[in-house]
Order: sequence, then C-alpha cells, then structure tokens
Amino acid sequence: MLESKNSPNTPLSNLGEFALIEHLTKNFNLTNKSSLLGIGDDAAIINDKGKLTLITTDMLIEGIHFDLGYVPLKHLGYKSVMVNLSDLYAMNVYPSQITTSIAVSNRFSLEALEEIYKGIQLACKNYNVDLIGGDTTSSKTGLIISITAAGFGDKNRIVNRKGAKENDLLVVSGDLGGAYVGLQVLEREKAVFKVNPNTQPDLSKYSYCIEKQLKPEARKDVIKLLDELEVIPTSMIDISDGLSSEILHLSKSSNVGFHLFEEKIPIDPHVNLICEEFKFNPTIAALNGGEDYELLFTISQNDFDKIKDHPFLTVIGHACDKKIGCQMITGLGQQIELTAQGWQSFSKI
Amino acid sequence: MLESKNSPNTPLSNLGEFALIEHLTKNFNLTNKSSLLGIGDDAAIINDKGKLTLITTDMLIEGIHFDLGYVPLKHLGYKSVMVNLSDLYAMNVYPSQITTSIAVSNRFSLEALEEIYKGIQLACKNYNVDLIGGDTTSSKTGLIISITAAGFGDKNRIVNRKGAKENDLLVVSGDLGGAYVGLQVLEREKAVFKVNPNTQPDLSKYSYCIEKQLKPEARKDVIKLLDELEVIPTSMIDISDGLSSEILHLSKSSNVGFHLFEEKIPIDPHVNLICEEFKFNPTIAALNGGEDYELLFTISQNDFDKIKDHPFLTVIGHACDKKIGCQMITGLGQQIELTAQGWQSFSKI
Repeated sequence: MLESKNSPNTPLSNLGEFALIEHLTKNFNLTNKSSLLGIGDDAAIINDKGKLTLITTDMLIEGIHFDLGYVPLKHLGYKSVMVNLSDLYAMNVYPSQITTSIAVSNRFSLEALEEIYKGIQLACKNYNVDLIGGDTTSSKTGLIISITAAGFGDKNRIVNRKGAKENDLLVVSGDLGGAYVGLQVLEREKAVFKVNPNTQPDLSKYSYCIEKQLKPEARKDVIKLLDELEVIPTSMIDISDGLSSEILHLSKSSNVGFHLFEEKIPIDPHVNLICEEFKFNPTIAALNGGEDYELLFTISQNDFDKIKDHPFLTVIGHACDKKIGCQMITGLGQQIELTAQGWQSFSKI
Repeated sequence: MLESKNSPNTPLSNLGEFALIEHLTKNFNLTNKSSLLGIGDDAAIINDKGKLTLITTDMLIEGIHFDLGYVPLKHLGYKSVMVNLSDLYAMNVYPSQITTSIAVSNRFSLEALEEIYKGIQLACKNYNVDLIGGDTTSSKTGLIISITAAGFGDKNRIVNRKGAKENDLLVVSGDLGGAYVGLQVLEREKAVFKVNPNTQPDLSKYSYCIEKQLKPEARKDVIKLLDELEVIPTSMIDISDGLSSEILHLSKSSNVGFHLFEEKIPIDPHVNLICEEFKFNPTIAALNGGEDYELLFTISQNDFDKIKDHPFLTVIGHACDKKIGCQMITGLGQQIELTAQGWQSFSKI
C-alpha cells in the first residue's frame, strides 16, 4: 500500500475524533471574504453579499454508525436526514435543502434503496426540506450515506457555539439518554435473536427509547418555540455525542466554564426503567450516550422568565468562570469534572 | 438482513446509474421557493432572495473510483476536490467553498490522512476555495471521500444543460481520452508489478496521460477565457463519464439532437501513441473513457468568430433536430448513433 510506504504510522485511535479534525485542518485558512464561519461549529456559514447560507454535512457508515441487523432502511434514511437538520437547528436556522450521496454494495436491491429514499422523502416532507442533488454509486462492502444540508440564516438570529457568557443559564430540550438505552435494548435483542431466531420479543415497553434511537426527530419545534418566546440563545449545539461532550464544546468555544446539576438533567421514566433493568446509571447514559439530537443552549438570565416551566425546556446549569472548568454537581453536592467520553468512531475501528 | 426480507430483489445493475437516480428521486418535488434547480444538472441552485448559491456533491469510494495500488493519497485528495469544482465550472460558476467528509479504516494511519488533506489543501489553494466543514470518521473497510462544493452564481451567467438550440455549435475544451488511457497504463503496470515487484518501469512517455488520470485539473481557465471572450454558452456539462454520455445528457435536457464529427474530436498525440501500443481506438477512449473533466458546451453560431482558432477550444459538432438523435459522423461519412457506454459504477459491483 502506498499510504504506508516509508512513513511513520500513527494509529488514528491515538487521537480523538475532534483532535484529529483539528490536526488535519489546522493549516487550512479561510481566504474568501464569503467564508464567514468555517470548521468548528455545527454548520459553516457562507456570505453572498449579506445573504447567509449555512451548510453542514454528515456521513453515516454501515457497521460504524448503524447496524442493519435491527435498523430498518426507511428509518435509516429518515435518521440520516435528521442528524444533518439537527446541526442547522443548532445554529437557530431552518434547513431548506439537502443533497444525498449514497453508496451500496451488490447485496442491496433496488427495493432496499427505495426504502432508504422513502425515509429521506418522509423526512423532507415533515421538515419542509427539498432534496436538490446527490450521487448514487456502488461500494465494495456495505452502505454509506453522506448528506449535506443547507439553510438560510438571518445574521441577527444565527447562534453559534461561542457566545455563552458567565452566569448564562444552560438549557436543554426534551430528555436525554433515551437513544443510548434504546440502542442497548436493540443490541440485546439482536444477541438473543442470534441464539434463538424463533423468539418473538415484546418490545412495547421499550418503544419510547427504541424510537429515540431508530427514528429521532430534529428539534424544529424548539427553534420555533424560542422564536415565539422571543429568546435568542447566546450559544447553542445539538446533542449528538452526549451531554458531556457538548458542554465541553460550548465551554471551549465560548471560553467559559459550566456548572451542571445532575439532578436537573431531564431523564424520561422509560429511560430510568430500562437503566434499572440493565443496571446502568441514567446520568451516564445522558452524559455519554449521545444521539439524542436534543438542543443544548445558553440564555441570558434575563430570559429565564420566558422559558421557565416550559415542558420542552429544562435549565440544567449555568456558565461560570473558565478557570472552574466544567463540573457536574451531584445530588450529594460532590463536584465531578466532565470529560468527553461520548461516542468516538475511531476507538471503535 | 432486513433489507432483503419479504421483498422482490431487483439487482441495481439492471438499471444504469442515471436511470437509477431518476427512479429513486422521481417522487421528490421541489416545494421551497428557494429551490431553483434540483436534481439533473451538474449542480443544484438555491435562491435566497435573488442571491444564488450553487451546490454539487460527489462521493469517491476505494475499489470503485480509485485503486490505492497506484493512486497516491495526495493526488486522490486533489482529484476528489477537482471532480466537484468541475461540476460548478460546468455551470459557468466559480466555486468558493467545499466541505469534505472522509471515512477510513484502521489500516490508514494519521500520516496517510495527512497526505489526503495535503492534496485537498493544494486544490483549495490553486482554485481559491475554502474548506469550511466536514466530517472525519471511521469505516469498516477502505477509504470513502464525499465532497460538497458551493459557489455563487449570477443569474445572467449561470449555464445549465438545457439551453442548447438547433444549429448551436458543440465545443469541447482541451483534449479527450487521456485520463482513460492513463488508467490503462497504470492498470498494466500494477499487473506487471504483481508478477515482478523489482521492475522499475520507465513511465516518462506516459506521463501526460497518467497525470490526466491521477491529477486532473478542473477547467477554471476555460470559464475565465469564455468570460474574457464575452461568450456565454447556451448549455454546458463537464466530461466525467465520457463524451458520448455527456452529449446524450445535453441532448435530453435541451431537447435537441447532435451531430458529432469524429475527425474533430481533439485527441492529444500522447493519447494516440498509447492507443496504438494498446491496440485501442482513440475515438472510443474519448467517447466512453470519461474522467477528462473537460468542459463540453454549446454556443450560438454568432459567437463562432470569438472562439475559433483558440488552442483550448475545438468545435466538434452542432445541435440539430431532436428527431435526428445524437449521431457521430465518421471520417468515411458513416453515421453512428451515440450510446452511453461511459463509466457505470453499478455494472462494476
């Protein structure tokens, strides 16, 4: 192989995903006036004489990001759109267009591809997004879906990761940990199925979390709600890798620390029940599980009255001096430093 | 596998790539006012209150689109940007931003990824394009590169595939067939190397074509030239799948036929020499080879004086009545109907 000839070979797993991207792109500078915001946020911003277009892209790979042993293809198509739309909502922007590139090996039939596109189409319909282009090609093994989403932004309303100020409140939408525990259930059922293919498991009590995993919804409704409440977050990110990892991103970009109160983390009773069954700590599921696609944002304390008691939104902490770092305060009053133990694709290679 | 359960299984190779995309996306309608042009051209156009952004995307898969046995990673990074920029030049638009998503398996080291990014960086520098985002993740096997390029267009200057009128001249930039015969040389040398790894082949006489294959350049210079000559093509496409396939695209989109004159097809002497060595017809290499990334366009006959005798540009035919279809006129005056025998990824699965 050419790539390994006469050169040192540093395994990619030595770096985390974010450190790797930072390393590989550190020599890339933005030279065009129209490149307003580059790598390092949920979406990039390009500026055509005052008109701002936001662009984000994500690639999903079979065996890394999904397992077709339990992920229906239509759901996969739907979810692959959601993960991209979620990045634009996290900039307080409505997506309007997507492109999709799909590669499949010869074990996929036309009907299989049709299922994926049905999911993409449903996502487009539900979120008022148009499919405007893409690429369909073959792969040697497995399925690869790469989607790019675009939306238009008003410069006074776009929210990135770097505006959080000390004392701002840290708010999260919905509830956390569901997608992760849903995945645990699916993995267990797959293992059971392997041993006994005739079992007909009753998964109804897990359906809340399984749906969170298989068919997440990007939080368009939260963006709409914030608009109605006249709240513009000071910083925002979507939760794809786990609450802990995302708080650390906001901290780094905004140059502040955070206090997170464990008892405030919204966890659905369904998640708690499954955690009990699996002997798993729900806080860990929320902190490190990821794939919840909820929105995490900071708001000025002045906006607290506007959002308090709203069933979608929970204040879970506040920004503090950078020197304090990112600390979780447990129910017993202990402080635990947050570390990014979220999902890392390269450690799984 | 879920995707093959209780459903008919139509092999993808039953359809060509373009028929497949058409089939899968036929139920997708453009519903947003901002979606000006969707699937079916070199790039899509989104319109934010008069400001037009063009977006195109392409995915390259190891073992399908490239062979790391002879493609250096830096060249691959460079080429993967070129194939996208070429699509924007084919709309008469200068690209300004790209996003790159790259997935690699654990046989790739950090240094290998650095090489790919060096190629991407060089492409960005040479073409005044900024890398503004992307995704870096792992794959189970092989290397996958998915790039999206964006550029801004002036509505009076954007050229798509559907404006050719009867009697318009058909023009191509540069020369054709080089990338294809370069690939044949590389494939042969790979086979020789397998048998005898100690051979040190002298590839210097093939370097023109090998470079066309490994490090193509998108024709930014042609767009600039047309601008200087004050020529706006009536339709345009880039040659990624072969001259024949691209003429058929222009024909279908513009609702005209074409006469192509075999003797006018520009073929470099280096290509002819290799074709002689390989006992291969140079016209076939030009018609079906692909990957030349030259621009194929139509102009009004009134513009002929502006472009005639230009070393970059060759008039190779003209548009005619749709009923005539797309015909190549050979040196002996025979008419041969053009068929799309260009590169088809699914027939290779």
